[in-house]
Amino acid sequence: MMAKCPMRSPADLAVWYTPGVAAASRAIAAEPALSCELTNRANTVAIISDGSRVLGLGDIGPEAAMPVMEGKALLFKQYGGVDAVPLCLDAASGEEIVAIVEALAPSFGGINLEDISTPKCFRVLEALKKSLSIPVWHDDQQGSATVALAGLVNALELVGKRLDEARIVLVGIGAANMAVYRLMKAEGAEPGAIVALDSKGTLHSGRRDIADAREALREKWQVCSETNRQGVTGGIAEALKGADACLAFSTPGPGIIPPETVASMADEPIIFACANPVPEIWPEEALAAGARIVATGRSDFPNQVNNSLVFPGLFRGVFDVRARAISERMALAAAHALAGHARQAGLSDQAILPPMERIEVAADIAAAVGAEAVAEGLAPPQDTAGLYGKALRRIEMTRRAASLLDENGCLSADFEAP
Amino acid sequence: MMAKCPMRSPADLAVWYTPGVAAASRAIAAEPALSCELTNRANTVAIISDGSRVLGLGDIGPEAAMPVMEGKALLFKQYGGVDAVPLCLDAASGEEIVAIVEALAPSFGGINLEDISTPKCFRVLEALKKSLSIPVWHDDQQGSATVALAGLVNALELVGKRLDEARIVLVGIGAANMAVYRLMKAEGAEPGAIVALDSKGTLHSGRRDIADAREALREKWQVCSETNRQGVTGGIAEALKGADACLAFSTPGPGIIPPETVASMADEPIIFACANPVPEIWPEEALAAGARIVATGRSDFPNQVNNSLVFPGLFRGVFDVRARAISERMALAAAHALAGHARQAGLSDQAILPPMERIEVAADIAAAVGAEAVAEGLAPPQDTAGLYGKALRRIEMTRRAASLLDENGCLSADFEAP
Repeated sequence: MMAKCPMRSPADLAVWYTPGVAAASRAIAAEPALSCELTNRANTVAIISDGSRVLGLGDIGPEAAMPVMEGKALLFKQYGGVDAVPLCLDAASGEEIVAIVEALAPSFGGINLEDISTPKCFRVLEALKKSLSIPVWHDDQQGSATVALAGLVNALELVGKRLDEARIVLVGIGAANMAVYRLMKAEGAEPGAIVALDSKGTLHSGRRDIADAREALREKWQVCSETNRQGVTGGIAEALKGADACLAFSTPGPGIIPPETVASMADEPIIFACANPVPEIWPEEALAAGARIVATGRSDFPNQVNNSLVFPGLFRGVFDVRARAISERMALAAAHALAGHARQAGLSDQAILPPMERIEVAADIAAAVGAEAVAEGLAPPQDTAGLYGKALRRIEMTRRAASLLDENGCLSADFEAP
Repeated sequence: MMAKCPMRSPADLAVWYTPGVAAASRAIAAEPALSCELTNRANTVAIISDGSRVLGLGDIGPEAAMPVMEGKALLFKQYGGVDAVPLCLDAASGEEIVAIVEALAPSFGGINLEDISTPKCFRVLEALKKSLSIPVWHDDQQGSATVALAGLVNALELVGKRLDEARIVLVGIGAANMAVYRLMKAEGAEPGAIVALDSKGTLHSGRRDIADAREALREKWQVCSETNRQGVTGGIAEALKGADACLAFSTPGPGIIPPETVASMADEPIIFACANPVPEIWPEEALAAGARIVATGRSDFPNQVNNSLVFPGLFRGVFDVRARAISERMALAAAHALAGHARQAGLSDQAILPPMERIEVAADIAAAVGAEAVAEGLAPPQDTAGLYGKALRRIEMTRRAASLLDENGCLSADFEAP
């Protein structure tokens, strides 16, 4: 990292350090909310993980989670102009994570939870949303769901189907698909027409294993109760028969979704095979089996369902309006902005989502999220007309600074000499 | 902050983020020590405070402590090329601070404690030094002591006195002077010739208030037992009579050290009046009363006893050799390097310590601290000949990068638009 205030001579110390800081500290002591004006808090997010479910690697611990969180911090900065601090915790339980994050909150403007196993991640997110007055986001849940919803909305548009009439299958019902389910409901999907599957098969109200643990597994039990109106039992083959779309966030493939089950779906089926590093079914197999639109989590295929499309712009928007929480409708606003951006650029079967490199995507999302926060009263009243330009300038400045350092050999030189 | 690795196009994402990071995460999962090679951990220090004793402001809480910790992070970077993360904790007790820092340790190469009240800070430092395998430093204790010792050694040289014969008075026996006491002892000062004072007067073995609480106040009780061979009772007036040096880290003045008590000291007395923002006695008063050498904590008088002279170079050295702890002898090595630098530049009554802006000061300290760590077996065996040059290059690169950003308006622009 590099400092972002000028330090030209030791005399500047008197401003940035003692005695200058005493005035800032005194003011915040009298009025704690001023910490958002007088420090960098309001532009800083903590990326919190316990390393209990990292990418496709599983429970590899906090040290090993660090490269992922550092990469994420880089994306926050480069795509959103957001300062992010990767903090990997040696924590034994969800309660411990909650206690630590609560203690850290005075230093941050927002919290991004990452790569925490289920069902622990549900409890941690719930508890922190309740106890903290700064926004808390679990990217593996809400971020994945926001991008997936944007892609699904555009895919349905291309095949001429409606979300509220679509038969949708969720393969895997962990952090990502649980949030996909909630966000689709909020967008108007019909719960009864959705069928979810875990490793034991379809979810339905006759699943005794889930009913018996309905306290610990309350999210899953809710899905059992609300979905699968037709009571489909069995596995992926039974669930996909006649389905319009399949959203898979499950186990690295290939071979998780057999090609013949794709062939059994309704006309012009949509397949999101989002497991990393290997999708549940390779795109070429899915297309050969009759899929019309295929998305994956990978950058080397078309239609990448990539959280990075959302979180930098979302936090840019949250910070620009000083939102104190991130609501479901703010996530929906982000999904709509993302989907709309792709439509403006021109939808096609290979382009249901916009590419990452467009700086305007994050600014669009920031403006939409910020405006929604203000409309809901989750941020102070303010004029939201300038949000797009404000976000764009901030991100452009970050990129300009990064280019400058890179062109002059400052980045790589520092990097090569750790 | 700014990222320190180049990100030229979205294709770089495949390296810095998924799928590239998976290889780094897998390697660290197999061998956790690799986190120092494969992440920025080995160059990153956490600045930890609970805001319970901030500068001269007292217990102002974590939000209000943030400006000070941000300023400190800037100094770490600008003077030491060290990446520092300010983390102000909402923590109710020392035990809670310890538990949180232990959980955070996997993300950091070192811990810098800051502005924590006594005696809590002693317990926190002790506990963390025991439980963590990364260096832990409490700058208000050890940093202050290191700079004060360097200044004292040079001041004694100027007046032609020896440390092991000097009569030294410690005004205030909080975090700073407690560490000054220990470090002076390690350097060869005679404990019996030292007299310490708290707000109730001199410390001696007849102090019932301290003896009765000797468990909670064990550091103070140790000072009572070891020092003040002559059993001086009373206050500053009694203690200073005939003393060679007075080191005050107590209450903001003026008027804490009356001029007439300075006049009662031995020939050519040395006064360090280090309270901030106002020293225990103004330098002009002390000099008029007969002091030969006066130091304060302020940048607007000669001889600034400023922790910033030490901590950036110390951590640079610790990180450059991958030391796993900071020993007392490493602190002494830093003090000697600092004192030596000032002697090379030319000692005078107004220049017992070098000025901050010399980039070579930090490199000198880094090399001395690194070499001592290796010599003590606190760092892996390695050739220490190149440490000075390595540290210098790293700090120069940081400053060059900061200048580049500043000249091109990237720093202030980003700063002005929070």
